[in-house]
Amino acid sequence: MHALDRIADASLRSAVLADGPGASLKAVEDWLEAQRAAQAMTVRRVPLAAMEGWSLGGDPRALTHESGRFFSVEGVHVETDIGPVHAWDQPIIRQPEIGILGIVTRVVGGVRRFLMQAKVEPGNVNGVQLSPTVQATRSNYTRVHGGERPPYLEYFLDPARARVLVDQLQGEQGSRYLRKQNRNMIVEIDDDLPAEGRFCWMTLAQIKQLLKRPNLVNMDTRTVLACLPLLGRGPLVPGETEDDSPPLLIGDLPLGAFARELLASVLDHHRPASPMHELLHWLTDLRARHTMTVAPRPLDALAQWVADEMSVHHASGRYFSVVAVAVESGVREVRRWQQPLIAHAGHGLNGFLLQRINGVLHFLVRASAYPGNVSLFELGSTVSRSGAGEYFSRPDAPPFLDLFRDPPPAWVRYDAVQSEEGGRFYQYQNRYMILELPEGLPVAGSPIHRWMTLGQIQDLLVHGYFNIEGRNLLACLDLCDGVPS
Amino acid sequence: MHALDRIADASLRSAVLADGPGASLKAVEDWLEAQRAAQAMTVRRVPLAAMEGWSLGGDPRALTHESGRFFSVEGVHVETDIGPVHAWDQPIIRQPEIGILGIVTRVVGGVRRFLMQAKVEPGNVNGVQLSPTVQATRSNYTRVHGGERPPYLEYFLDPARARVLVDQLQGEQGSRYLRKQNRNMIVEIDDDLPAEGRFCWMTLAQIKQLLKRPNLVNMDTRTVLACLPLLGRGPLVPGETEDDSPPLLIGDLPLGAFARELLASVLDHHRPASPMHELLHWLTDLRARHTMTVAPRPLDALAQWVADEMSVHHASGRYFSVVAVAVESGVREVRRWQQPLIAHAGHGLNGFLLQRINGVLHFLVRASAYPGNVSLFELGSTVSRSGAGEYFSRPDAPPFLDLFRDPPPAWVRYDAVQSEEGGRFYQYQNRYMILELPEGLPVAGSPIHRWMTLGQIQDLLVHGYFNIEGRNLLACLDLCDGVPS
Repeated sequence: MHALDRIADASLRSAVLADGPGASLKAVEDWLEAQRAAQAMTVRRVPLAAMEGWSLGGDPRALTHESGRFFSVEGVHVETDIGPVHAWDQPIIRQPEIGILGIVTRVVGGVRRFLMQAKVEPGNVNGVQLSPTVQATRSNYTRVHGGERPPYLEYFLDPARARVLVDQLQGEQGSRYLRKQNRNMIVEIDDDLPAEGRFCWMTLAQIKQLLKRPNLVNMDTRTVLACLPLLGRGPLVPGETEDDSPPLLIGDLPLGAFARELLASVLDHHRPASPMHELLHWLTDLRARHTMTVAPRPLDALAQWVADEMSVHHASGRYFSVVAVAVESGVREVRRWQQPLIAHAGHGLNGFLLQRINGVLHFLVRASAYPGNVSLFELGSTVSRSGAGEYFSRPDAPPFLDLFRDPPPAWVRYDAVQSEEGGRFYQYQNRYMILELPEGLPVAGSPIHRWMTLGQIQDLLVHGYFNIEGRNLLACLDLCDGVPS
Repeated sequence: MHALDRIADASLRSAVLADGPGASLKAVEDWLEAQRAAQAMTVRRVPLAAMEGWSLGGDPRALTHESGRFFSVEGVHVETDIGPVHAWDQPIIRQPEIGILGIVTRVVGGVRRFLMQAKVEPGNVNGVQLSPTVQATRSNYTRVHGGERPPYLEYFLDPARARVLVDQLQGEQGSRYLRKQNRNMIVEIDDDLPAEGRFCWMTLAQIKQLLKRPNLVNMDTRTVLACLPLLGRGPLVPGETEDDSPPLLIGDLPLGAFARELLASVLDHHRPASPMHELLHWLTDLRARHTMTVAPRPLDALAQWVADEMSVHHASGRYFSVVAVAVESGVREVRRWQQPLIAHAGHGLNGFLLQRINGVLHFLVRASAYPGNVSLFELGSTVSRSGAGEYFSRPDAPPFLDLFRDPPPAWVRYDAVQSEEGGRFYQYQNRYMILELPEGLPVAGSPIHRWMTLGQIQDLLVHGYFNIEGRNLLACLDLCDGVPS
């Protein structure tokens, strides 16, 4: 029986209150639909050379903005002893500044509420998506593009205005960004802020319900929520609860069977498949034994890449391409602009395999090395592959991919299509799946995979070990499996 | 009352057995003195140009070995918004490969023994020092310099030969090395290895006793030992002890008052001055708000640095210089060689301030940014300053330095001069001090310092947050304060 501290208590109550007094899922959905209509944005593909302010220049040549700010698309040559391909060229996004992805929360009636934003991005397939309270690049808050400072940013910059619950540097896609990190923040305020227009207060369970539908909750929301532990861990402080309400006891919660498995996987330290020092040994060994060098190359002279009027794309038509869009918006700070985006052919797959081991739910975690990783190998989901459909049943398919092709319905714990960052990716979607394998089903060993409990994952995640693919999928875990979606 | 798992149990027994049956401190001292005589090495300063195989070349010009291996001394230009000086040039050591610093241990009679090596390095002030079982650069084990493979290396490379207890990537001095990391390893074996010649089995307490004398235990030993938790933490597994001996209960240990304070600072999760999420917020904020760029420059064209026949040194005579030595050794794999070393003017200071807060011992931890850090800000001791003596009582002295000048004897928990890595530094010594301030004594706030319990420090250290200055000083903490030194 576990009693939670005040912060965890309010978060857990929020995680199980999807609908009911003060939390109408229908109202949230209606607001999001209204915002979709109100924030119309037109986006059309244009030639790369038609982007005002952007040009191919510098040494080595890259696609940069004349202000020197925002981001650039550069070329790199990669050499490594990891994997089947030992050298390649590719474009990569460079944006060395650290932005803030931040969610404001407030505890009302013992339940944590999250101040969410309906935000449109040019790469979104469907206009607005549910976004953090604040998505601020440093350009945003130094106002280099002449726009306004994002509302509520002060709660993240002024320590007197809020209690910081989460503040972690976390990486973006290492296959597409060069060493890009953002600050993932969750703050708690006491101010009774009204939510108006494109902002809305909601519970964690409501956000999780929206995560069961395709493309409603954006990537930035997912990464921030992944940094919020599923419940408080370690030395819990009983009695210190909000509003004098009695402390929440996990045994009393109205949870389904899978939610109870998840909580046990966080709380049960005693039976991990591998103790933490073995997991760290495995990762250190990978990081120490392998090398990857990433050297700059001109964007228009990358081996196997073709630069034409409309895109920089791979000669095979696979992987991804650099395209340009012209955007018109009635609601964004700047009304009209052009920018590069990264386009992908087909959906990718982002999947976790789960299995009960020693009676505790474990996650099969993969270590992977991408050119833009801050640390050579980082941890993530079991399988993460753009253009996954091409690889099914092929000898060069990533390990475990085929298990996600047509899984028995009884294995499926989560299955939805989600969008990646619409400010940088053009209509890029991945199928997110979480499968629980039957206990005892033999699973092949893999040198780049290890089984971990959710508690071990959370312990490592806070220190930046998990890549964004892994974090984004973990954010889809839900304690509300009894609530209709 | 805490019961320990088998690994922690054997380590803790080792930490309190400095002398007695099977652990004679006198025998260890005699062996070390005999090795000092047996491993004589002659080292003399020579002109930089007199180093065979080394030359100033490349673009930008750097001091490199003709094989392209070992290490190089390069120049960098640093720009930052941190601290009073916003731009400078300096030489820096570059050695991108990851070496192994590894100690073999074996549990005998329920007590962990450490296989230590008496090893001589050209920069040592006193010949041999106590070293890990293995100090292997990648050059060592690929044998680029034609020497032999270090003995016992197989226990670190072959997973079937040993159980890995510690395997962590940890950084070297970020002020002197460019992003240099080593693997810090401790493995446990069952083989009944005899220790002969320059190797000797000893308990942790014996090593800690030697750490109370000047310059006997080398830097590599200190960093590896810092990665061994003072005792097992978290979910301890009672009953699983070695040799059917009864589990060790901390309450039963023959510990002095300071040792009990240290253990309480590890075990008492409930009363930290700042909870972990606040500490991470503080560090994330520093890392996100500040920048430092490090660009290559020719070693012989660094602003304010003078390259002459015998050294590359700063025009002011301060900081450090690059010198050359010629070495003759009867015992090293290669008998005669020349190499660059980094020389320092005067001793530095490496000091921790401790204080009881909320009844629990806390350490005042500093976040500092050096050009060679992997993460911009890393954590370390309260004060770490080369040429410390020059700064006492000056307005530009680092915060808290003056507390270390003439501390009341009652505050002093540790005070000894220790050597830094003799393979790269020429006779570089720092005074290591740990002071416990009286409870309640007001201590000024500092934006780059935070109070942490030893438990919090150990939780962060395992993930690479602590710099080598901090780790080296933590290694000097000792549970044997009742044993005469």
